Formats: sequence, structure tokens, C-alpha cells
Amino acid sequence: MYGRYTQDLGTFAKDEAARLRLQEGDTPRPRRPSELLEYTQGRCAPCRVCALQCQRFLISKVGEDWVFLILLGLVMALVSWAMDFAIATCLQAQKWMYGGLDTNVLLQYMAWVTYPTVLITFSAGFTQILAPQAVGSGIPEMKTILRGVVLKEYLTLKTFVAKVIGLTCALGSGMPLGKEGPFVHIASMCAALLSRFLSLFGGFYENEARNIEMLAAACAVGVGCCFAAPIGGVLFSIEVTSTFFAVRNYWRGFFAATFSAFIFRVLAVWNKDEETITALFKTRFRLDFPFDLQELPAFAVIGIASGFGGALFVYLNRKIVQFMRRQKTINRFLMKKRLLFPALVTLIISTLTFPPGFGQFMAGQLTQKDTLVTLFDNQTWAKQGSNDEFEYLGILEAWRHPRSNVFVTLVVFILMKFWMSALATTIPVPCGAFMPVFVIGAAFGRLVGESMAAWFPDGIHTDSNIYRIVPGGYAVVGAAALSGAVTHTVSTAVIVFELTGQISHILPVMIAVILANAVAQSLQPSLYDSIIRIKKLPYLPELGWGHHEKYNVRVEDIMVRDIRYVTLNCKYRDLQQVLHSTKMKNLPLVESAESMILLGSIERTQVGALLNSQLSPQRRLMTLRQKALSEDGHRLSDSSIRFQISTETSSGTPARPALRKPLKPALKRVPSSPADSPPAGSADHTGIALKSLFCANAATEPTEIRLGVRRMGGSLLALVGRPYPLPCQMAPPQILEWEEQQLEQLVDFSSAKIDPAPFQLVEHTSLHKTHTIFSLLGLDHAFVTSIGRLVGMVSLKELRKAIEGSLTGKGVKVRPPLASFRDSTASTTEADTTALRQLWDRHQHHHMPREAGPGGDDDEDDTPK
Amino acid sequence: MYGRYTQDLGTFAKDEAARLRLQEGDTPRPRRPSELLEYTQGRCAPCRVCALQCQRFLISKVGEDWVFLILLGLVMALVSWAMDFAIATCLQAQKWMYGGLDTNVLLQYMAWVTYPTVLITFSAGFTQILAPQAVGSGIPEMKTILRGVVLKEYLTLKTFVAKVIGLTCALGSGMPLGKEGPFVHIASMCAALLSRFLSLFGGFYENEARNIEMLAAACAVGVGCCFAAPIGGVLFSIEVTSTFFAVRNYWRGFFAATFSAFIFRVLAVWNKDEETITALFKTRFRLDFPFDLQELPAFAVIGIASGFGGALFVYLNRKIVQFMRRQKTINRFLMKKRLLFPALVTLIISTLTFPPGFGQFMAGQLTQKDTLVTLFDNQTWAKQGSNDEFEYLGILEAWRHPRSNVFVTLVVFILMKFWMSALATTIPVPCGAFMPVFVIGAAFGRLVGESMAAWFPDGIHTDSNIYRIVPGGYAVVGAAALSGAVTHTVSTAVIVFELTGQISHILPVMIAVILANAVAQSLQPSLYDSIIRIKKLPYLPELGWGHHEKYNVRVEDIMVRDIRYVTLNCKYRDLQQVLHSTKMKNLPLVESAESMILLGSIERTQVGALLNSQLSPQRRLMTLRQKALSEDGHRLSDSSIRFQISTETSSGTPARPALRKPLKPALKRVPSSPADSPPAGSADHTGIALKSLFCANAATEPTEIRLGVRRMGGSLLALVGRPYPLPCQMAPPQILEWEEQQLEQLVDFSSAKIDPAPFQLVEHTSLHKTHTIFSLLGLDHAFVTSIGRLVGMVSLKELRKAIEGSLTGKGVKVRPPLASFRDSTASTTEADTTALRQLWDRHQHHHMPREAGPGGDDDEDDTPK
Repeated sequence: MYGRYTQDLGTFAKDEAARLRLQEGDTPRPRRPSELLEYTQGRCAPCRVCALQCQRFLISKVGEDWVFLILLGLVMALVSWAMDFAIATCLQAQKWMYGGLDTNVLLQYMAWVTYPTVLITFSAGFTQILAPQAVGSGIPEMKTILRGVVLKEYLTLKTFVAKVIGLTCALGSGMPLGKEGPFVHIASMCAALLSRFLSLFGGFYENEARNIEMLAAACAVGVGCCFAAPIGGVLFSIEVTSTFFAVRNYWRGFFAATFSAFIFRVLAVWNKDEETITALFKTRFRLDFPFDLQELPAFAVIGIASGFGGALFVYLNRKIVQFMRRQKTINRFLMKKRLLFPALVTLIISTLTFPPGFGQFMAGQLTQKDTLVTLFDNQTWAKQGSNDEFEYLGILEAWRHPRSNVFVTLVVFILMKFWMSALATTIPVPCGAFMPVFVIGAAFGRLVGESMAAWFPDGIHTDSNIYRIVPGGYAVVGAAALSGAVTHTVSTAVIVFELTGQISHILPVMIAVILANAVAQSLQPSLYDSIIRIKKLPYLPELGWGHHEKYNVRVEDIMVRDIRYVTLNCKYRDLQQVLHSTKMKNLPLVESAESMILLGSIERTQVGALLNSQLSPQRRLMTLRQKALSEDGHRLSDSSIRFQISTETSSGTPARPALRKPLKPALKRVPSSPADSPPAGSADHTGIALKSLFCANAATEPTEIRLGVRRMGGSLLALVGRPYPLPCQMAPPQILEWEEQQLEQLVDFSSAKIDPAPFQLVEHTSLHKTHTIFSLLGLDHAFVTSIGRLVGMVSLKELRKAIEGSLTGKGVKVRPPLASFRDSTASTTEADTTALRQLWDRHQHHHMPREAGPGGDDDEDDTPK
Repeated sequence: MYGRYTQDLGTFAKDEAARLRLQEGDTPRPRRPSELLEYTQGRCAPCRVCALQCQRFLISKVGEDWVFLILLGLVMALVSWAMDFAIATCLQAQKWMYGGLDTNVLLQYMAWVTYPTVLITFSAGFTQILAPQAVGSGIPEMKTILRGVVLKEYLTLKTFVAKVIGLTCALGSGMPLGKEGPFVHIASMCAALLSRFLSLFGGFYENEARNIEMLAAACAVGVGCCFAAPIGGVLFSIEVTSTFFAVRNYWRGFFAATFSAFIFRVLAVWNKDEETITALFKTRFRLDFPFDLQELPAFAVIGIASGFGGALFVYLNRKIVQFMRRQKTINRFLMKKRLLFPALVTLIISTLTFPPGFGQFMAGQLTQKDTLVTLFDNQTWAKQGSNDEFEYLGILEAWRHPRSNVFVTLVVFILMKFWMSALATTIPVPCGAFMPVFVIGAAFGRLVGESMAAWFPDGIHTDSNIYRIVPGGYAVVGAAALSGAVTHTVSTAVIVFELTGQISHILPVMIAVILANAVAQSLQPSLYDSIIRIKKLPYLPELGWGHHEKYNVRVEDIMVRDIRYVTLNCKYRDLQQVLHSTKMKNLPLVESAESMILLGSIERTQVGALLNSQLSPQRRLMTLRQKALSEDGHRLSDSSIRFQISTETSSGTPARPALRKPLKPALKRVPSSPADSPPAGSADHTGIALKSLFCANAATEPTEIRLGVRRMGGSLLALVGRPYPLPCQMAPPQILEWEEQQLEQLVDFSSAKIDPAPFQLVEHTSLHKTHTIFSLLGLDHAFVTSIGRLVGMVSLKELRKAIEGSLTGKGVKVRPPLASFRDSTASTTEADTTALRQLWDRHQHHHMPREAGPGGDDDEDDTPK
């Protein structure tokens, strides 16, 4: 967020704290010599000294970025590996149960169905109880967080535990769910926790910009250690979570993701799963002639079809969610039994994949990983001219059906998995959609590849050598294209290379991914954006591909002109009125209602605090005391005032929860930083002071209070907690009179925090540029000025409306009807000139002599006429 | 650049133009029916109609981004392929000459040496004559251009031709030069030219933001079609040219680079060079066991050593340039004969690589491409236990020397090529340093690999299978690491995968590249940043890796406090004084000297124009005329005034060239856009009006004019061209008197263009944040305000000083001595409060009653004491 004022205060305080700490680090701390003395008495004194020095060195280094990144990478690699191990064990247990019960089909079915149902239900229940924030992918939330908005409870230890355990159970059930999206979230939580943990060691300080940088790196680590794809991970996380990317943060992502991917694969080697570090889904396509030039149209077809498929998937996923929400009968029933929906979905899906049942037509017995391994297989499955019957070895057996051919199996697999995945990803468990989509894409690619292989049994190449078509290559292309279409990313191409360990199909993959993106982006938002919209998270839509009309809409077309403001010489009554008439979080402060020169912006809470301090019982007491002093010279004791203050403080506590909103900017106002407390505290005064405003009446005339509060506006009603008695020395009518009198006074802004440089735009700024500035700086509002004069305001809401309006052709008018009458040269300067003239006229009371002319327009021919 | 005002004016005008054009496109143009009628008379009328419709459709589509990107990719692929073809022909010619003359060593030597010398000399001379801007890499310049600064003549057709032909000759000579850097420049020029060409078709309009987006895509295309590496190209161009990257432009780069790389490789297939599309330097390492885990330390060593090597290369390159510049004797001699230096360098290098001479110890007969192919070779060259003598086949023969072993050859090659490349890249021809460095890195990697292979003849792996060490893999790692270290990029890793077509060594490559970057970045700037500094291009240094002190420096520590400003109620004399006392390009406009409320910023040229219009002979004439009117009622005829105006206009032309500066923002002020003319015109008035100010004296008293001009300040002296006679009806003393009188008048700002919202910072903004904002928005200055009051200014210069100062520990003080006395809470608000209080006091003349207190500080315990 841009709000410079609050940020700079926060940053300043953090800097100060850091400086103090650094100073502390440079100069030996006072207690250090005593520590050393204490230890030198012991036997192993040199060891202790050495250990202390080491500790000191470590503490001084622990704040360095690379230490943090290495730790993050290490932890995430361990988490990823441990989860993979647990998931594999779960899946093996199911297979073992299924295999052991092969005497009775019914028992087999029970085992096949019950096992995932129990796991998914447990996962849903566990997540629901521990941290409901852990549900779903997490990428949409991370995108919002990286934009500067802080979502409550999204980066806590509780959510971390819930997500890790929930995800392990969900994936262990064998449902078509992915671990990639949740891993981005897990890595971010890990980074946030690690950052908090390291700050315990000192030598490390919190900084908002640094936190965001670290979260961005964590997203890369998440993808990187999930797929052992460092480059793809970095790129995918950038594409998915960022709008503008600081290249100076690039190395962080690479460093952490590489380290993480390295450790992740080394663990596999140490566990004797692999002989050495290789790709996760290694392919062995021939290198000398990976594909023929004439196969490219087939790859392009995969790309375009994947684009449509991806858009359909996003649409289907959204429609399922919306259907579930709209159907009130279903919804009420499911809401009552929260775990029924997950169980039901799991039951349906696992029934359909039951291998002896329908599962035999869709390779139902294969796990997601096995499916991918078989789809990327080097051989051709379809019957070919030379060897009539291909030998299906090992797990490939699952794709063969005695009464049908491989094409049918593949088509059934694609169709069934498509809706199953779209449905399964709506289950309220931690889960991603990347991997299921990836598998479907691979199957689709394989289908096209097998068809091509059947069509051209000896390859297309006409030269001396016969190069058969490699259907596995098509599967790779299809996987990249469909996952790229669903997520609107190009970097799935890189992920695919890193996953398979082969880059020979780079051009087909790139072509297919770009075509898929082009088609999907013009049809639907990305899956993550779709979830952002469903969840109503604050967001700014992207400008589409080459929408030229964006250059034609300007700020003046979309801005709100009728805004409330605070003037420098206003009365407290005006503040009260402004507070009741608007809900804006930031109010502009102008010099006067006539000049409208923007001086800064003041937070709503600050205005409330000003009003409250003016009407506080303390001031009332002071007035009373001073009156008393002037009347009989009697001095009130300090203790009574102190008592008042302590009451004030204690009364502040219950008001706090009422102020908490789900989108509280917690990251910015880190509780540990010392200087953030004053604004936070003063923000909480809003409610307190209002309470104290009516505290005298509270005990005696409760109805009157309610009326009074209602008169003051509904928005403040919520802030008033329980009324409590406070000793006041004024009678209620006196208080009202005193308050009326106080409200007539001029506002003293000296105690208020004012953002002295709120972001300003001018009327002619284009929508395109406004969007860029808002995304770049993470603004949520900007004032529109014309030569220092406030003329309007644009907030995220208006901008969003304008962009979506111009995208869909509905909503806000893209070009207001009168706009075409604007002259290109005259109107540009006219508004500015008029405004300037007004200012100028105010300052210059003696008019210029007429013979001198207004100046600068001497070359007009018609003046002498 | 941020300068909203000028931009928005320009954008506005362009938008209007585009809108008008769109309207034209939507509604049938009035002349279209007549055209149709004309054609319907002919025989093939339907064809004509169809053609017209097609044309219309094409024109409406031609403005789309993807058409532009496809065309750009196509053109660049053709250019790249044609250049490669020409270079290969040149190199073959040399080889043929050398081979044909094998009877006489002297003749052979003559041929070997003369050929490259002639080519390099021609290239240097041709570039010098046609476009000196084409010299060198071009990446530093593109980095500067993408930051928003416009370098003159850098994107013209002339430079394009010079760069293409110069580069072809330079590379055809066989010197250790690269084509990658220049290709970035060529692609950018191609994009600029294509954009201008397409705008001829209409349906397409200029937009500054779009131009920058397209140039960024062009940089990606440049790298992409040079190496047939679309992904690496995009990433490399982002890392090398951008500071902040808009993710929404990502697809542009990918799209264009993929298309370009595709066409580039397809051309090779069509030319029967290749059987199908494969990598440029295809490797055939084994897939099943690419490397052992225990080889990783060796890869890490390559990375660290490459880091030092890369830093040394950058240092050496810079020192050579600086040495050549400093040595005045050499310099004067070389300057006289501009082509001597290139010829001399070529002579030395080609003499040393002469194969029968010293070249036999360093594989001198191999071209750069052949060297790379041999270095990436799959076999092990060093003697091994099993087969004592390895058969050097084909071009591998060059690496063998009968009287030495391959290690000596490699070491000599690395050492010689290192200084040769550093020297050769300083030759004033279009050339890059990426490829030479890449080759040196590959050789170094090969050296380490061969050593490892000699050390562990049967591999390190202790299990059943014997996996020999693959020295080619080490060469790949070394190439990526050294080129990454020199350019400070991580994406060389991706380029290497795309170049070799194998991704099996991903982890070693990533580890080596990251280590190399870590070492090199802490020692030296990147090669491109080094060139930027040598060439003194405007730049903003990057913030280093985790420099925490950046968070502690604030704007108030670095800002310029003593700035000149223009007040709203100032006199023309004040304007004159301000113009003479400062060289700032943008002057702040404040309400008054007391309030200092910032209203906007006004360009220096605008202030000059205001001053000139006030003192213009036209106004003088008008005064005279009106005086005459009032005296004898005689009216001057219109024609005489018209004559005056026409003189004014014609006199404006010669003043224009004097105003041109090398960094003129030409991209922003595209001559074709209609609305830019008014500001440009008014800017040019500065000189004219000054001339006309003294026009009467010009003919009669030339010495007095000079004195008068000198009195007015040296900076304006340059603007005065030749004095010319202009009929004035006033005597010189009268004129001076009239001028003095005019200068006493209040300024009328209504005709001036004022930027109503210049960028503002507050005093507490941290250096880190200021850097971010400056890089994000491409600012070159920002005003520092405190509650609307102007308190200082920060420009790129101060920021640069502060960053470099804090990096080196010299220069600007990182932490001013008094800063430690600042209290974390008190000082933050103090300045703001004081300023606000001043403002408030001005407005509120009756003080608040003392019993009310200053408000908000009631909870201070010590008030009643």
C-alpha cells in the first residue's frame, strides 16, 4: 500500500529500532563482560568464550538474506519430502488393502471407497476446526497479500499445521488434487514464521518491504521444491502472484528455490529412491530427432484445444462453486453437516475409479504420479504396422483393456477426470488444481500423439531415416498447454522441462503454451483470479491483451467528484458531519473550501480521535477544574486525574475487538515494532471517546444515549460497546451544553497524524497509466488534483469498475458522450487555466492594465480589430 | 519518465488522434463510396471490393500487438539467419584462403592476418562514418532507453544499417566478439522502425507506454533469435535491461521470441543445414546418470572461480578503456588515425592465433562456433586408464598438440582468450562480449572436467555401474557460470539449456551460476553497468544485496534544501532572477514565499517563454501603438503587425539547433503527434524572444548587447544566435525603460503549462523506498513536501550519490551525525506539527482559550503541576 504516512512512521520506528540494535551489536553490550567473567571461572572457559563469539558472529549473520533463504529452502525441502513420503505411504496402504482383499469384490470396493472418504473427511474436519484459512489453493490469497493487502490469520503457525496435515491427508486419499498451490501458501507461511523466529535472535529487523520480498521468494520456493523445478518455480510464482516484479529480487527466488530443489532431490538420493539427482518425471525421448517440422500443426492443435479446455475448466469450477452456494436447500443441508459434501464427492469419485468397475476403462488403479509416468512413456501404445501387439509392461498394463483400445481408454479418462478434478477442487480441504489439470493435459496430448502415430505409422519424415512419432512428446506438450491455459501462465513450459529433464520439445511446448494462453485468456480469467472473485478478495483486474480503448479513458471519466473533505479552518462540528456523511477511510485535508488546495490526507480514525479528544471527559473535567480554580482557588489533587486516565485506558480494551476487520493491515503494523503503537492506539480511541462522550448519561438515561448515538450516524453505533459508569461532575444538560460549545471551536490539527503527501493524479491521466501506478505502488486510492486544487478521488473500486466495464462493454461508460466534443488543444489547458486564474485572481487584487493584455497571446491576429 | 504533465498532454493528444482515427474506421469514410463507385465501373469490380474490404480488415488488425510481434519476430529471424550465413561465408573464405596457401607459411600468415584486419577496419570505418551510435554492445544504451531516457539517434534506420553491416564484418573476421549484445540493439531498432512503418498504415497509434513495452519485447527477441533460446532470451533481456518488470508484458516477449526462434531454426532446416528443429549447440550427454552427487563441489568451485574471473574481466575491460582514454600521446595519435587502433588490435590477436605459430597451442584455427562445439563434446580428451590414446576426430584435432597435452592447450587458450576478448571488445565496432566470455567459461569448465576425469578415471560412483565423468557437462556449467558472472544474470543457465538442448545438468548449472553471481556482484558492477558508467549515461545504481543501511537513510538526509521556486504572485523580475540562479529543468510553483504550499511545477523553458512574451517586441509594438492611438488616434494597419509576426516565425528556425541536446526526449515528443507542437514550439521561443529583446540594439550597438546579455547570465548567452535587424519604433533607452517597467509587473501564469501534480515525497521516506519509486516511475526528480509545504528536492543525482556513498562508505554521509539524537516518536511528528501549526496559525487569528489546551495531550501527567 502506498499510504506513505503510516508506512513511513512504521519504517522510521523500525529503522530506529534496527539502528539501536545495530549500535548494540557494534559496541559490546554492557552485560557481556559480566557474562564472560562468569564463565571464565569454569574449567572450559576458552570453549565458552569461543562459543560466545561464534554465537555473536552467527547472530550478526542471521539477519542476512541468504541465511534466511537457505533456512527457508532447507525447511521447505524437508517438508516437501516428508509430505511426499507420507502421501506415498498412504497411497501404498490403499493399494495394499485393495490388493489383499482380491478374493471379495465387495470388500475390495468397501476398502477402495472408505479409505479416501475417511481421509478426506478427516482433512476437511481437521482444517475446519484448526484453521479454516488453510482451505483451498492459497495462491489467490498470496496474490492478494503480495499486493499489499493483509489477510488475517493467513500466515500463522496454526494455518501452517492445518495446511500441511490437511494436504497430506487429502493427497493421500488419491483424489485428483494437487499439492502445488498449497505449497506456495505453505512456503509463505514458513517464511513468515521463520522470519518471526529469526527475529528472536536479534540482529534482524522487520521491514515491510523486506517482508514482501521474502514472501515473493517463498512463493518461488513453494513451486520449486514441489516439482524440483527451480527456474520454473521462480517464473511461475512471478506470473501467478505479481503484477510488477522487481528484478533485484530475482536472485532471492532463484537462490532459495535452487537450494530447496537441490535438498529435495538429495533427500531422494539419500533415501536410495534414486541413484543421483535427476528430474522428477524423467523422460527418455530420442535427442537426435525429437519431432518433425510437419508435426507442428498437431502441436498447435493441442495448444488451441487446451486453451478452450482450460477456459472450460475454470468455468466449470466456478459454476460448481456458485451452484453449491445458490442452491439453498442443498446448501442448508450441507452446511449443517459440514463434512457431508467432501464425503459425498469422494464417494462418487472413488466409486467411479474403482478398478474392477468403471475404473478399468480409465486406468483407475493408477495414482496421479503413476499416471503421469505412464503418459510420458517413450513407447507408442497404439497398434502399429510393424509390431502388431505392443507389450504393456508393469504399470502400463492399466491403460490396456481387453475389450476396447487405448484411444477409448484415453478419451474416457480425459472426460471423467475433467469433471472429477473440477469437482474435487471445490472440496473444502487444502488442495490445488495444477497437478490434476497437468495430468488431464498429458492424457489429451497422449491421445493426439497416439492418433498421429496411428495415422503416420512410419513417421512423417520422408528422408532416408525413419523417425517414428513419439506420443510421449505430445503428452508433455499437452500437459504444459492445459496447465498453462488454466493458470494463464507461460512458465508451465519451463516447469515441464524441469519435470521431465528434457528440453528437446522446447519449440512445440512454447507454441502450444502460447496458443493455449491466447485462447484461454480471451475466454475466462485464470483459475486463481476466478477464485479471487468468488472469494471477493480485494484485487485489481489485469488489463487485457492490447485493449486500446484503455488509452482513451481518463481519470476524469471515472473519478468520484463529490467527495467529503476536511478544511484547515473547520470546526469540530464539521468534522462530525464529515464523519457521518462518508465512509472513506482517508479524508483529504484542504486549505479552505474556497481554495480547495490539497494539503494532505487524514485517516478517518484520526478525525475520530480528534473529535473524541475534544469531547473527552478529561477535557470536561479540566474545564470544570479550571472553573473551580477561578471560582474558589481550590486545586484538584493529581490523583483524581490519574484515576481518570487509568479508567480511560482500561475502558479502551473492550473496544478493540469491535474495530478488527478481516482485512486488518497486520503485516504493516507489526505488533513488535514500537512506533506503530501510537497510531494504533489512537485509532482505537474512536470508540472509547464516543463512549466517554455519553458516559455520564449511560447509567442514568440509557434510551437517550441510544437516540443520541443514532442521531450521530449508524456507522458509529457499532463502535459503542457496553456503557459503563464513570464518575462525572457535570449534570447531563450541562454536558450537552458544554459539548455544543466544544463543537463550535476550531479544530486543532497539531495532534493529528496527517499524510503530508497523498498520491495525486491529474484529470488527464489515462486509465492505462492509472492502472500501472495503482499496481506499481499498491495504492487503494488517489486524489485527483488540478494545480493543487482537489477535484476528485479515484479508488480501487472505481478503477476496477472502469476496467471491467470496458472489458465487458457494460458498466461504466468507456467514453462519456460529451468527450467527443473536447478539442484536443483547447480543452487541455482550459481547465487548468481557469483554475489557475481563480487562484491568481485571489492573490492579485489590482487588475493588470488592459493595454498590456493577458500576455502570451500577442500573435492573435484578431486583437486589434 | 514521470513528468506527468508533458506526458499527459502528449498522451491526450495521441488519444484524441487515435479516437478520431477509430471513429473514421467505424463510420464509413466519406470518400469511400466514391472510390467504390469508381471501381464498380470496371470489369473486376467484385474483386476490387473484396480487396478493399481485405485491406480495411488488415488495416484494422495491423495495430494489434500480435501482428507487430509476429512481424518483428519474422524480420529479426531473417536478419539473424542472414547474418549468420554471411558470417559463416566470411569465415569459410578465410579458411579457404588459409588452406589454399599451405605451400608458403609467409603467404599463409599474410592471408590469415590481412583478412580480419581489413574486415575490422572496414567495419570500424563504416560504422564511424554512417552512425557512431552503432559502436559497441547496445545493451547499456537499451537499459538507459527503457528507463525512460531517450538517446538521440539510437533507434534510427542509419544506425540499424551500420550495426548490421558492421557486426557482420566484425564477426566475419573471426575475432573473439559476440553478436548477442548488438542483437538486442538491432531488435530494438527493428521494433522502432517497424512501429514507424506500421503507423503509415493508420489503424495504429503512437503511445509512449506501448513503445516501451514493445522495446522490452524487442530486447527479448534479440537474444531469442540470436541463440534460438526464447525463454532464456526473455529472462536475460529482463535481467539485463529492466529494474521493475510488468508481468503483463511477459507474454509479448515470449510470443515474439518464440516466433523468432522458431523461424530462425526453420530457416536452418529449409536450408538443409539441419534435419529438424534442434538446439544450436546440441549436446549428447547421457540421460540416466548425468553427474554424481559427489561431483557437486567441483561444480561449486567452477562457480566461485567464474565469479572471480567475471569480475576480473569487467575490471580488465574497464581498465583498458580508461587506459586508452588517459594516455594522451597514444590517444592523440589514435584519434588522428581512427582506424589504427582496430587494425592494430586485430593484427596482434590474429598474429597470436596463427595456427602454425602460437595458435597451435590454443586451438587457433577453430572459429568461435567450432570451439564451442568441441568444448561441449561428449568424450573425454585426457588420457584414461582403459584406452590410452583417445582418437581426436575432425575438428577436435585442433586441441591436440604433439608436444604437449590437452591441459596445457586449455590453460593457454583460457589465458590468451581472456585478455584478447577483453581487448577486442573495446574496439569501436558493433560487438558484444557475451559469446567470447561464454567460450572462455566453457574452456575453463572443460579444464576442470578433464582434470576430474583424469583424477577419477572410473568415476566417483561406488555402486555396481561405472559412470565415467562427463567433461562436456563441466564445460556447460563453466560457460553458464562465467557469462552469468560477467553480465550479473542468472538466466544464462536457461540460455545454456536451450543452446545445448539438454537440461540434465540443471542443478550444477544453477548452483554454479548463483555462486558466480554472488562473488561477481560483490566485487564489480556488471559489464553493462560498467559501460554505462564509462559512457556516463544517466543511470540509477542498483541497491546491493541486503544492504540494511539503505533502510536507515532518509530523504531528509539527502535532499537539496536550498532550491529556487516561483511564487504565484511574483513579478517578472523574480522569474528572471530564478532563471539565472538555478539550472533546474523544473521549477516548483508555490503559493507564496510565506506559505510555501506546492501548487505544481513549471518547466524552465515555460518560465523563459513567459518572460519572453512579456518582453517581446510585439508587446512593445502594441504598447507603442496604443500610446499612439491615445495620442493621435491613428490606427496602425494590420499588415504591419502581420509582417512582424512573420519575421518572428522565420527567426525562430535558426534558434532550434542550439536547443538540441544529446539527451533530447525524442520518443516522448514524437514529431508526428499534433499536440506536442505547442510545448515544443514554446520551448523554442526562449532563444527567439531573448534575441528580439535586444533586436533594436543589434544593428546599432553590438557591444552593448553583449554586455546586456552577459548581465543576464551566461546560460542564456548560448541561446542567442546571430543578431538580426528588426524594425523597432523605440529608441534603446526607451526600450530599457519599458523593459524595466514590464519586469515590475506581476506574472500572468494563465498561458504557461504547469504540471499540476509533480511527484512528492516526504522527509521520512527511506532511501530504499525512494529508490524503488524512482525506478518504478522513471522519475528524475521529486519534490519533498511537508503538509503541502515545499521543503526540498531530490533528483537522480542526489539519489545516485547517496547510494554510491553508502555502498563505498565515502561521499555522502550514510547517517548524519545529528540523526542519532532523533527520538523515535517525538521527532516524527514534530516537524509536521510545527509546519501545520504555522499554517493553522495563519488561518486562525484568534487563539484558542488556554483552558481548552492544545488538545490531544490531556493524558500528560505534568500539565497541572
